[in-house]
Amino acid sequence: MRRSRRQAAGRRKDEGASRKVPQLPWTVVRNPYPAMDIAGPDDVEAIHDASMRVLEETGINILLGEARDILRDSGVAVTPGETRVRFDRGFIEEAVARAPRQWTLHARNPARNRVMGGNHINFFPVAGNPNVSDLEGGRRAGNLADYRDLLRLAQVINAVHGCTPMLEPVEVDPDIRYLDIVGEQLFLTDKIAFGYSLGRRKIRDAIDMVRIARGISEAVLLDEPSIWTVVNCNSPLQLDVPMLHGMIEMARHNQVIVVTPFTLAGAMAPVTIAGALTQQNAEALAAIAFCQTVRPGTPVVYGGFTSNVDMKSGSPAFGTPEYVKAVLLGGQMARHYALPYRSSIVNAANWPDAQATYESAMSLWATVQGHTNMVMHSFGWMEGGLSASFEKIAIDLEMVQTMIKALEPVDFSEPELAVDAIADVGPGGHFFGTRHTLERYETAFYEPILSDWRNFETWKSDGAIDTTRRATRVWRQLLDEYETPDMDPGIAEELTAFIRRRKQEGGATADD
Amino acid sequence: MRRSRRQAAGRRKDEGASRKVPQLPWTVVRNPYPAMDIAGPDDVEAIHDASMRVLEETGINILLGEARDILRDSGVAVTPGETRVRFDRGFIEEAVARAPRQWTLHARNPARNRVMGGNHINFFPVAGNPNVSDLEGGRRAGNLADYRDLLRLAQVINAVHGCTPMLEPVEVDPDIRYLDIVGEQLFLTDKIAFGYSLGRRKIRDAIDMVRIARGISEAVLLDEPSIWTVVNCNSPLQLDVPMLHGMIEMARHNQVIVVTPFTLAGAMAPVTIAGALTQQNAEALAAIAFCQTVRPGTPVVYGGFTSNVDMKSGSPAFGTPEYVKAVLLGGQMARHYALPYRSSIVNAANWPDAQATYESAMSLWATVQGHTNMVMHSFGWMEGGLSASFEKIAIDLEMVQTMIKALEPVDFSEPELAVDAIADVGPGGHFFGTRHTLERYETAFYEPILSDWRNFETWKSDGAIDTTRRATRVWRQLLDEYETPDMDPGIAEELTAFIRRRKQEGGATADD
Repeated sequence: MRRSRRQAAGRRKDEGASRKVPQLPWTVVRNPYPAMDIAGPDDVEAIHDASMRVLEETGINILLGEARDILRDSGVAVTPGETRVRFDRGFIEEAVARAPRQWTLHARNPARNRVMGGNHINFFPVAGNPNVSDLEGGRRAGNLADYRDLLRLAQVINAVHGCTPMLEPVEVDPDIRYLDIVGEQLFLTDKIAFGYSLGRRKIRDAIDMVRIARGISEAVLLDEPSIWTVVNCNSPLQLDVPMLHGMIEMARHNQVIVVTPFTLAGAMAPVTIAGALTQQNAEALAAIAFCQTVRPGTPVVYGGFTSNVDMKSGSPAFGTPEYVKAVLLGGQMARHYALPYRSSIVNAANWPDAQATYESAMSLWATVQGHTNMVMHSFGWMEGGLSASFEKIAIDLEMVQTMIKALEPVDFSEPELAVDAIADVGPGGHFFGTRHTLERYETAFYEPILSDWRNFETWKSDGAIDTTRRATRVWRQLLDEYETPDMDPGIAEELTAFIRRRKQEGGATADD
Repeated sequence: MRRSRRQAAGRRKDEGASRKVPQLPWTVVRNPYPAMDIAGPDDVEAIHDASMRVLEETGINILLGEARDILRDSGVAVTPGETRVRFDRGFIEEAVARAPRQWTLHARNPARNRVMGGNHINFFPVAGNPNVSDLEGGRRAGNLADYRDLLRLAQVINAVHGCTPMLEPVEVDPDIRYLDIVGEQLFLTDKIAFGYSLGRRKIRDAIDMVRIARGISEAVLLDEPSIWTVVNCNSPLQLDVPMLHGMIEMARHNQVIVVTPFTLAGAMAPVTIAGALTQQNAEALAAIAFCQTVRPGTPVVYGGFTSNVDMKSGSPAFGTPEYVKAVLLGGQMARHYALPYRSSIVNAANWPDAQATYESAMSLWATVQGHTNMVMHSFGWMEGGLSASFEKIAIDLEMVQTMIKALEPVDFSEPELAVDAIADVGPGGHFFGTRHTLERYETAFYEPILSDWRNFETWKSDGAIDTTRRATRVWRQLLDEYETPDMDPGIAEELTAFIRRRKQEGGATADD
C-alpha cells in the first residue's frame, strides 16, 4: 500500500502540481442551537432516580481493594471482604458535583488545544479496532504501519481535533504495545494524545510521555489536562482492577477520564432504552464519583455508548433509531449533571458503502443534536468496532465537514438579504454574473472533497467511479499532503530514550 | 427488467415461502420535538421585511391577464398593459392569513387520508424525473412500464404517504401523458393523487378523474381537498400562463397547491442564503396570496427548494450545508405564516452509493428538524432531479423508517426503567434470557430491511454483497408483494371511459 501511494504521488508530479484537498480550516466547532431534548424534565428525573436506586439497592462491584478503601475513607459503607459497594445517592450527587463543567484539553502544540464542555464539539477518529482495510489492500490485522498512516491522516485532517489509538497494532507484544500507541501519536501528530488506562504502570508511562512531549513539569501537568483515557465499565455494574488502577492514576494527575459504560440494550443492559439509560447513568455516575473522590475537580466526561443488539445474532447494531435516542438522552443526562458529554459516530456495516454511510449519518446528527462535546469514532469506524477503514475516513470527513458548515450561523445583514441585487436582476433574469454574486461566490458555498456533482454522462465517460472508490483517491492524497509536525530535538531525544528504556525493561502488564 | 423480476419470484418460490420485507406499518408520523430554529425572531422578521420590499419595489411578472384582473379586482394596483405587478405588503399579509393552518388531504381510500400541518410529517416519493435506473437494467428514459412499477412500490411501501408523478414517461405524447400520469396513480394505488397544473384543461381533467375515483360529487370535492399540485415559480419573480391557469382552477376547486419557488442560490436567486430565502419568501407569498384571492381558504403549502449551485458548473447541488440551512429556514418562515411546509430529500449523485446516501441523509434530518409537513422526493430521487433509482428507493426507505422510529417517544414508565431487572441480573451478568427481555425483545428494536449486521466473515463468505446490490433484492421483493388495491367496478369503468374519451379527443396542451 505504501508503495502504491508513492507511485500515485509520482504520477501526480508528472501531471504537474496537484491542488490540495479543499479541507475546511482547523477551527473551533460549536452547536449554537439548542440541544434536541427527547425527555421532559420529569423523565430526566426518573432516569436519575432509577439509577440512584440501582446504586443504592444493587450497587456495583469494585474489584480493587485500594479503590474500596478510598471510598470507605470517604464515608461510603463498604463491607470488609465484599467487592459489592452500595452508594448513598447523597454521596454520588455531591461527588459528581465536584467535576468541572468545562476545561481545556492540552496538546503538545498549544494551537491544538481544545475546549471540552458547553456547546463545543470536538471530533475524534476511530479508536481501538483490531483490523484495518482499504479498497486495494483489503482487510488485514492491525499493524504499526497502518496505525502510523492513520495517525498521519489524523494530523493532516483539520476536522480531526485530537488523537485516539486509531488501530490496535496486534503484531506488537501487548506489554510494550502501549508505548508505541502513545509514542506514535506524539511523534506523528501535534494534537491531543490518548493513553489506555489498563493498569497503573501503563498509564503512568503514558502520562510521563505526554509530559515529556509537552516539555512541561509535573506541576504544570497537574494544572493542565494533557492526556485523556476512556474507561468502559464491565457492564453490568462492574469496575475491574486494571481499570480502577488507571482511574486512580489519571485522577491523581488531574488528567481526563472519559467514563463510558458499554451498555448494549438486550445484552449487557436492559432491552428498553429507559432501562439501558438507567444502567448507563448508574455506572457512569459511580465511576465519576469515584474519580472525584480520588481527586476532587478531576476533569471527567460523561460517556454514552448505549445501543441495541441485533436480536437475531446478539451482535451490536449502530445508527439505529434506538442508538439515536440513546445518544440524545445521554446528552440530556450529561447536561443535567453539568458534565461534558461523549458519544460516537458508529455503524455496523462491513463495507464503506450506503449502509455504513446512513448508519454513520444518523449517528452524526444525533451526536450534534445531543451537544456531544467529544465525538468519538468520527472518522473510519466500521463493523461495529472490528475494523478501521481508510475509505470510510474520507466519507466521514465529507459528512463531518458538511455538518461543521451547517452549524455556522446564517448572516442576515442587509447586504446578505440582497434586496437590491434582486431588484437589479429583476423577473426572468439570473444572478450568475452580478456584482453581488461575484463578490461572494468563491466562499459562499461549501466545496466538497468527495462528492461528484458532474452530470451523469460526464461521470460515466470518466469511468463511473463510485464514491467509495473516489474515497481511495481522497485519503491517499491527504496522506501525501502529510507533513511531520515540528518537535524540539531535545524533546524528541528524551521521548525516544524513554520509550527505548521502557521497552528494554519489558514494558508493563495490566497488573503492574 | 419485468422478466427478471418474475424469474426472481420464481426462484424464491422454489426456495419455499419467503418472509415479507419487515416494513413498519402505515401510520401517522409526527415530530413531537421542537423544530430546529437557526434564525432568531429578528432574523425571521428581516427575511419577511426584505421579501415585502421585493414585492413592493420590484414586484413580480404575472403573465396571465386574467390573473392580473383578479388581483386588480381585489385592490392590487395593476397597471394596464404591464405584466409586472407590485404588491402592497398589507395585501399580501391579509391574503396569506386566509390560508388554513392544517387540513386533511383525501385519498380514494379514506384510510390513506393524511393531515398536513402542525408537526405532521408525510413522506412522498421522487417526482418528475425524466430518467430511471436500476442496477441490472441500467439508466433509461422515463417510460410507462417503469412509471407503473414505481407506483406499485409507492403503494406497497407503508412509509410512502401519497403519490407523485414518480417518473416522466417521455415516450407518451405530452398532450395525453397527463391522463396516464394521473390515471395510473388512481388505478395502481389508493393513496393521495397528484396532478400537474400546466394549463387549465389538464388540471380540470385531473380533478375530474380524482372525483370519479373517489366516487364523490363536485360539492363534496369542494369541501374535501383530494388532489395536490406543485407550482414552481419561474424564478426569479415570474409566474407563467399555464401555471397561473392551473392555480386558478385548483383554487376554485379548493384543491391543494404547493407553491415551491426553485430558488437556486447563485443562479436564479442571490448567492447568499439570506438573499435566496428572501426571494423564495417573496415568490411563495405572492403566489399564495394570489391563490387566496381566487378563493379564500384554499389549502396551500409553503414550499422551499432553495439550494446552492456548484460554482464550477452551475449545476444544482443538494444535501449541502447551504441546503440544510435553507430547509430549516424555510420551515421557520412557513411557521411564521402558520402555513404547512414542504421541502425535499434530495441529492446530486449519479449512483445510489455513499454520496447519494449522505446527501439524502443530510436532507432527511433537515426536513424532519424543520417540521416539514410534506417531504417530497423522499424515495428514489437521484442526479439532482434527472433520474429516479429503484435501488435508491430501498436505501431511502431504510433511512426514512429509521427516522420514523427515532421520532417515537421513549417510554419512561417504571417497568421500562428496569430497576428490578437490573437488580435481578446484577454485576457481571447479562440480560439475554431474562423475563424483562423476553417480554419485549420481539418489538423492542427496529428491524432493518436492508442493513446487513452479520459479521465480516459471514458477509464475505455469502458473496460480500454491498448495500446497493442488496437494495435490488429489497425493491424487487417489495414489487413482488404488491397487490392492486380494490376499486369499485363501476368507478373503474367510468374512469377508464373518461381517460379513453379524453385521449380520443386529443388530450390537452398547456394552452388549453
